[in-house]
Amino acid sequence: MPKPIKKRSKKVGLPPGTLVHIGEKKSEKTKITILNYDELHVQEKEIKTVDECFPFKDEPTVTWINVDGLHQVEILEKLGEGFGLHPLVLEDILNTDQRPKMEDYGDYIYIVLKLLYHNNKSNEIAAEQISLILGSNFVISFQEKEGDVFNPIRERIRNGKGRMRKMGADYLAYALLDSVVDNYFIILEKLGEKIEFLEEELVTNPTPKTLHELHHLKREMIFVRKSVWPLREVISSLERGESSLIKETTRIYLRDVYDHTIQVIDTVETFRDMLSGMLDIYLSSISNRLNAVMKVLTIIATIFMPLTFIAGIYGMNFQYMPELGWRWGYPIVLFIMLVIGVFMLISFRRKKWL
Amino acid sequence: MPKPIKKRSKKVGLPPGTLVHIGEKKSEKTKITILNYDELHVQEKEIKTVDECFPFKDEPTVTWINVDGLHQVEILEKLGEGFGLHPLVLEDILNTDQRPKMEDYGDYIYIVLKLLYHNNKSNEIAAEQISLILGSNFVISFQEKEGDVFNPIRERIRNGKGRMRKMGADYLAYALLDSVVDNYFIILEKLGEKIEFLEEELVTNPTPKTLHELHHLKREMIFVRKSVWPLREVISSLERGESSLIKETTRIYLRDVYDHTIQVIDTVETFRDMLSGMLDIYLSSISNRLNAVMKVLTIIATIFMPLTFIAGIYGMNFQYMPELGWRWGYPIVLFIMLVIGVFMLISFRRKKWL
Amino acid sequence: MPKPIKKRSKKVGLPPGTLVHIGEKKSEKTKITILNYDELHVQEKEIKTVDECFPFKDEPTVTWINVDGLHQVEILEKLGEGFGLHPLVLEDILNTDQRPKMEDYGDYIYIVLKLLYHNNKSNEIAAEQISLILGSNFVISFQEKEGDVFNPIRERIRNGKGRMRKMGADYLAYALLDSVVDNYFIILEKLGEKIEFLEEELVTNPTPKTLHELHHLKREMIFVRKSVWPLREVISSLERGESSLIKETTRIYLRDVYDHTIQVIDTVETFRDMLSGMLDIYLSSISNRLNAVMKVLTIIATIFMPLTFIAGIYGMNFQYMPELGWRWGYPIVLFIMLVIGVFMLISFRRKKWL
Amino acid sequence: MPKPIKKRSKKVGLPPGTLVHIGEKKSEKTKITILNYDELHVQEKEIKTVDECFPFKDEPTVTWINVDGLHQVEILEKLGEGFGLHPLVLEDILNTDQRPKMEDYGDYIYIVLKLLYHNNKSNEIAAEQISLILGSNFVISFQEKEGDVFNPIRERIRNGKGRMRKMGADYLAYALLDSVVDNYFIILEKLGEKIEFLEEELVTNPTPKTLHELHHLKREMIFVRKSVWPLREVISSLERGESSLIKETTRIYLRDVYDHTIQVIDTVETFRDMLSGMLDIYLSSISNRLNAVMKVLTIIATIFMPLTFIAGIYGMNFQYMPELGWRWGYPIVLFIMLVIGVFMLISFRRKKWL
Amino acid sequence: MPKPIKKRSKKVGLPPGTLVHIGEKKSEKTKITILNYDELHVQEKEIKTVDECFPFKDEPTVTWINVDGLHQVEILEKLGEGFGLHPLVLEDILNTDQRPKMEDYGDYIYIVLKLLYHNNKSNEIAAEQISLILGSNFVISFQEKEGDVFNPIRERIRNGKGRMRKMGADYLAYALLDSVVDNYFIILEKLGEKIEFLEEELVTNPTPKTLHELHHLKREMIFVRKSVWPLREVISSLERGESSLIKETTRIYLRDVYDHTIQVIDTVETFRDMLSGMLDIYLSSISNRLNAVMKVLTIIATIFMPLTFIAGIYGMNFQYMPELGWRWGYPIVLFIMLVIGVFMLISFRRKKWL
Repeated sequence: MPKPIKKRSKKVGLPPGTLVHIGEKKSEKTKITILNYDELHVQEKEIKTVDECFPFKDEPTVTWINVDGLHQVEILEKLGEGFGLHPLVLEDILNTDQRPKMEDYGDYIYIVLKLLYHNNKSNEIAAEQISLILGSNFVISFQEKEGDVFNPIRERIRNGKGRMRKMGADYLAYALLDSVVDNYFIILEKLGEKIEFLEEELVTNPTPKTLHELHHLKREMIFVRKSVWPLREVISSLERGESSLIKETTRIYLRDVYDHTIQVIDTVETFRDMLSGMLDIYLSSISNRLNAVMKVLTIIATIFMPLTFIAGIYGMNFQYMPELGWRWGYPIVLFIMLVIGVFMLISFRRKKWL
Repeated sequence: MPKPIKKRSKKVGLPPGTLVHIGEKKSEKTKITILNYDELHVQEKEIKTVDECFPFKDEPTVTWINVDGLHQVEILEKLGEGFGLHPLVLEDILNTDQRPKMEDYGDYIYIVLKLLYHNNKSNEIAAEQISLILGSNFVISFQEKEGDVFNPIRERIRNGKGRMRKMGADYLAYALLDSVVDNYFIILEKLGEKIEFLEEELVTNPTPKTLHELHHLKREMIFVRKSVWPLREVISSLERGESSLIKETTRIYLRDVYDHTIQVIDTVETFRDMLSGMLDIYLSSISNRLNAVMKVLTIIATIFMPLTFIAGIYGMNFQYMPELGWRWGYPIVLFIMLVIGVFMLISFRRKKWL
Repeated sequence: MPKPIKKRSKKVGLPPGTLVHIGEKKSEKTKITILNYDELHVQEKEIKTVDECFPFKDEPTVTWINVDGLHQVEILEKLGEGFGLHPLVLEDILNTDQRPKMEDYGDYIYIVLKLLYHNNKSNEIAAEQISLILGSNFVISFQEKEGDVFNPIRERIRNGKGRMRKMGADYLAYALLDSVVDNYFIILEKLGEKIEFLEEELVTNPTPKTLHELHHLKREMIFVRKSVWPLREVISSLERGESSLIKETTRIYLRDVYDHTIQVIDTVETFRDMLSGMLDIYLSSISNRLNAVMKVLTIIATIFMPLTFIAGIYGMNFQYMPELGWRWGYPIVLFIMLVIGVFMLISFRRKKWL
Repeated sequence: MPKPIKKRSKKVGLPPGTLVHIGEKKSEKTKITILNYDELHVQEKEIKTVDECFPFKDEPTVTWINVDGLHQVEILEKLGEGFGLHPLVLEDILNTDQRPKMEDYGDYIYIVLKLLYHNNKSNEIAAEQISLILGSNFVISFQEKEGDVFNPIRERIRNGKGRMRKMGADYLAYALLDSVVDNYFIILEKLGEKIEFLEEELVTNPTPKTLHELHHLKREMIFVRKSVWPLREVISSLERGESSLIKETTRIYLRDVYDHTIQVIDTVETFRDMLSGMLDIYLSSISNRLNAVMKVLTIIATIFMPLTFIAGIYGMNFQYMPELGWRWGYPIVLFIMLVIGVFMLISFRRKKWL
Repeated sequence: MPKPIKKRSKKVGLPPGTLVHIGEKKSEKTKITILNYDELHVQEKEIKTVDECFPFKDEPTVTWINVDGLHQVEILEKLGEGFGLHPLVLEDILNTDQRPKMEDYGDYIYIVLKLLYHNNKSNEIAAEQISLILGSNFVISFQEKEGDVFNPIRERIRNGKGRMRKMGADYLAYALLDSVVDNYFIILEKLGEKIEFLEEELVTNPTPKTLHELHHLKREMIFVRKSVWPLREVISSLERGESSLIKETTRIYLRDVYDHTIQVIDTVETFRDMLSGMLDIYLSSISNRLNAVMKVLTIIATIFMPLTFIAGIYGMNFQYMPELGWRWGYPIVLFIMLVIGVFMLISFRRKKWL
């Protein structure tokens, strides 16, 4: 199950802007790739030293610097210096326990997002923190480890079809945002399937295991919710913000991402509603089953206790028990027992217990 | 039960504005009909090629273009081009998993709605996505399949009575909206009847089946709610919006639709309240019945266990048990048993268990 | 129980402004009475034809036209025409399933209210729709049937004491509103008594019937709530509205009605809180009673099962059972049984089960 | 338990401003005391006729008129006339079922509050309505009966220490408000003690009585909440209001009262949270106890039923039962029974039932 | 468990600004330390008399006066006089039952915070009230007792690295705030661990003790929540406030603290969601276990009751019971009993009870 909170305590007491990587070390080496393009040219390379980035800063083309792996603090420090990033921004990039947010620093906009993906090993939802720096002609993206979520965008830049190459850095940032939000739909589809499967199980054969899966799903929903809700505000302030870094033509696309976010939130809330409805059903069916069990017990006891009692009476050893000597005593008692038994069964049927 | 989420994953990674139809293919062929009218003339025809629409764009009359079936992407593409629709609008029309919304693109307004109807086959509520494009002198409506929900409006245009023919495209859009909202009342009436039926059943004879129907109704309510809540905002922004496409005289009618929407929402919330009250009742009556069952068991056990014990005592084979030899031992024991049994019954009656 | 929703489906598909009466036909004949007054004169009459109203429109005196019964659509149509009412207003007056609302049409203000009353026949709360049209010098009120709720106001106008006769039509409208809101207090008192009675019953002797009454009260509360909540907004917009139809001196009285409405809402919410607390109590006392029942069963079984077993042992027919031949075997066994029984009772007392 | 609603129905139908005392008659006689002071002088007297108040109205000193007892309507009427109070204000003073509110009438401000106190007789929280009229140089306070809540303020005026005598009527009104709010803390402390006591009881020895006390506390909390929530708005509008009756120097003190009110509300909400958590605990411990009871029953039944059955077998009277004649039959059977019993006990221990 | 409310009643009736220490006396002596610094110099000393502080007031350097221990009221009074603090501020500093708040008095800003720490003795969360006075060139901090929470800040001032020494008093206040908020993360980590441990226990072996720990955690969460929620508003108004005491360069740091606060709140809410989910799980598993217990009982009873009855029949002493004389009677009966037992077991397996 995803941990509700990360170890942050190692930062307590340090001055603000101190760069400490908080989170798991998900990759071995920090890898920096550069993709520089305008409408006519594309240039792509992986760089060894941070300094190779800086020349692109002053070119009129759009530059996308992608950083995979956050644990090499010194590389980030250099990058931050070169692009004039505020120490608090660097601190937030390294602290992978951020809440999604957007901060406008005038020269650049800093955006934090949570990329959700399904961890196949643990069969659970996991989150990776994505940070974006949007400048006038560059975008720097930070990922905790190498991933393939941005590959389709790279492909679109390379083949030069569509709007991508004609638009600026803000459109690139939008495209990155959009691909993160699109990923939520995949997660939600998976969760939706799990919910339907569980609902099926609930109706046909609920077990304590069903309950634990329900609980697990609820926990995952809390987790997804925590990642998605703040996103709404993030994108909404990007869209309506006054930053000159985002052009009017791009805003309409941001509104589209915003709509998707609302849809994701809507679906998460619907799932939550459905899950709590399912818990009610589970509890009711436990109660129903208890009722069924108790009815069986009561029917058995109610039939056999009086009969056993009668048998007990004629098992007594009194010397003067005239019935014992009767010729038809035994069959008569058996018949009486039969009558009592049948009468009981009928009265149960009337009470609709059978 | 309506699916909580549609397969959207096939779109992940594609550039925005890529036209892919998301949703079931509900009709075989895309059918386009045109209804062109002003106060004096009406012209109605089904067209074969999209190009036949475009001349109407520049005529002063009102033109209603209705498109049934969304899967022929190329037709929509052409239509979008001819009427200058933004690629994102076309994308949204094709993606039938939209949340109701309204977007003002200056030249035209784009509205998405959910038409709810009762699917008689599956005995469930189903939804169809309706998209409207309102231009200065035209309305384009998109339906997933041919339906009869707009027929009364067609009829009103044809016979030329009432306000319809005298008003512009905005009034036509209003009329379409209104007929969608009116449909919600039919759905709500149906749900209301189901709820009353269930409530009756709950009082007289609750079974596990009742619980599952309750659950099902709750699910349907979540579904209806999801379609109706955003509608409120849609119509409210149409009414209060600054678009010059909607004339002052039409706004008063939009306010009327707005009122209806509020009423629908109100009723949905009332139904939800009622359903959760009914679940409480169900759970209580299960508990009550368990109590009743346990009382029967306890009464039987409490009466017969002591009696059986007494019978057991006189069934023991000790050589020296003086009572066994007594002349009246047997009747005395029977009498004692009777006294104990009657005493038990009286004490149960005092506890109000009988 | 009040129906959650009325048959509206017969209106679906009709153009807006089509006059169809929705709701039960509560009175036989539409009855129109006119009360015309200024500070010095009062004139009161019942009219036969609608045309008799119209001359009052241009007089400087205040005219109150009261219409009882809504099913004669043609009368309303004429009245609407004569006073220049918008077709949508007439439609709303006839549709008795309205949510309370207020609409400012410039020349006149249209107000819809729900009058709640206790139907003594069915012992339930029922609602009647009251519509008010406030013009510059007239008020038209529409009731579903003849009622006595406005009689005290009529009396105040007739005897000419107090502020009534000196003030304009807006004060009359306020007085009508006020008497409707005052009626809510009567309903709430009745509900409050029922709640207290039920609470008493819950503590002393809860039965499944108590539960159903609880459920019934909850339903009634949902019903009252639905009528009262929107009223708040109605009166608040009348008070703060910019309409010149309402004079400054009347606003202070509207603020008073507003306060009453808030108080009604407050009480309704308090009642809801109390009812849900009572349900918890009910469920707990069922569980408590189940516990009590089970304790009795367990005590009986735990005492008599071991004893019966011992009796069973000495009821076995083995040839070599030395105890059976002992002189004091029987009394010793009886004594052992007594010891076991007493020991059990003591241990139950220690567990506080007795 | 405090009544949720008072008899208001006797006012229904009366014109606004009709003075009727609603509420219990809590005192025998209306008592009016006057306290007139400035920085140098204090004058204190109890007056017989209302007219004695009026001369103070035009003096530059601060005058505090305190009225205990509301049932003598004619006195209030005179007072209202003399100080130019609006009839609706008088009506609200008499109606002790008011929601706390503040109304600015220009010349004076009208404030209604609820004074909560612990009724020692019924061991319950009770409320008294306090009305304040703040004029430019006077404060009129109305209490339902004589009380000692304002005595410390009187004392502070008399001894002339502190800020009191140097400040105006607005500071006096603040002081009265402050002492009412301070009283809430006493009530909350009492409730807090009750909650802690109940929590202790819940953990050590929950009984149905505990549940009823829990319910009672919840009811009291609803009651306190209803009195406190509106107060927030009252004081906030006094503080931020534009009335020239409240001087800038006093506003800072009002902000302090406001903070106290927020703290009271905070505590009430915390208590509510705690109480609902306690109900959950109660329900769980009932279930736990049911489980414990059932385990005892099941253990007893599971051990003795098979044993009794075996004893029953050898109690059968078949002629040909070879075991009966065996020399060691009896001890062997006893040994088998012992083995079965021990085996059962071990398996219960494994299931952690023992 | 932390007390929900402190004894405030001793203040009731006293005039505002009366200095009374409310809360536990946590330290023996009031200790005042002064830290005076600018970019080049640092001076640190513990002072004996309050008067030693006042000279620093007029120096251009930044002065941090830290007061540990609040019970010596006269020291605070003097300090307040010297720095021109409003009596209400002093009152609030002494009353350790404050809600976190921020008040701008023009010359200085008053901030109240709750420092949460884990009390190792009672193994509970405890709170200490921290008050800050931010002037143009000084910060006064008040703690209930000596603590080490501000030591890292002292260290940073002493060693002169980083931004600290170059910035003004507002940055110092920020640093103090930040260290308080950082402490919340430590608390939350601890709570998070407890929750995970409890969740583990809940799945493997839930006991009534688990429930009480759950309840305890819920209570602690209510406590943390109460301290953290108002903080959000405090920091947000500092950040967006118009006070000239906070420089533009510091605001960006406050925004950072604000983000942390939001994150803390988010985590608290997530924990609350998780805890209530866990309660549901607990209740369900109790029910599940009851079901399991009852099944065992029912299986045993259903198998042995009929068998014992049969044995009882052949234990009857009728003279004419032909079966008793049969040669194979005994084995036949045993076989029948076996068949019945096996049949029962099979039918239980079919019902999935075994």
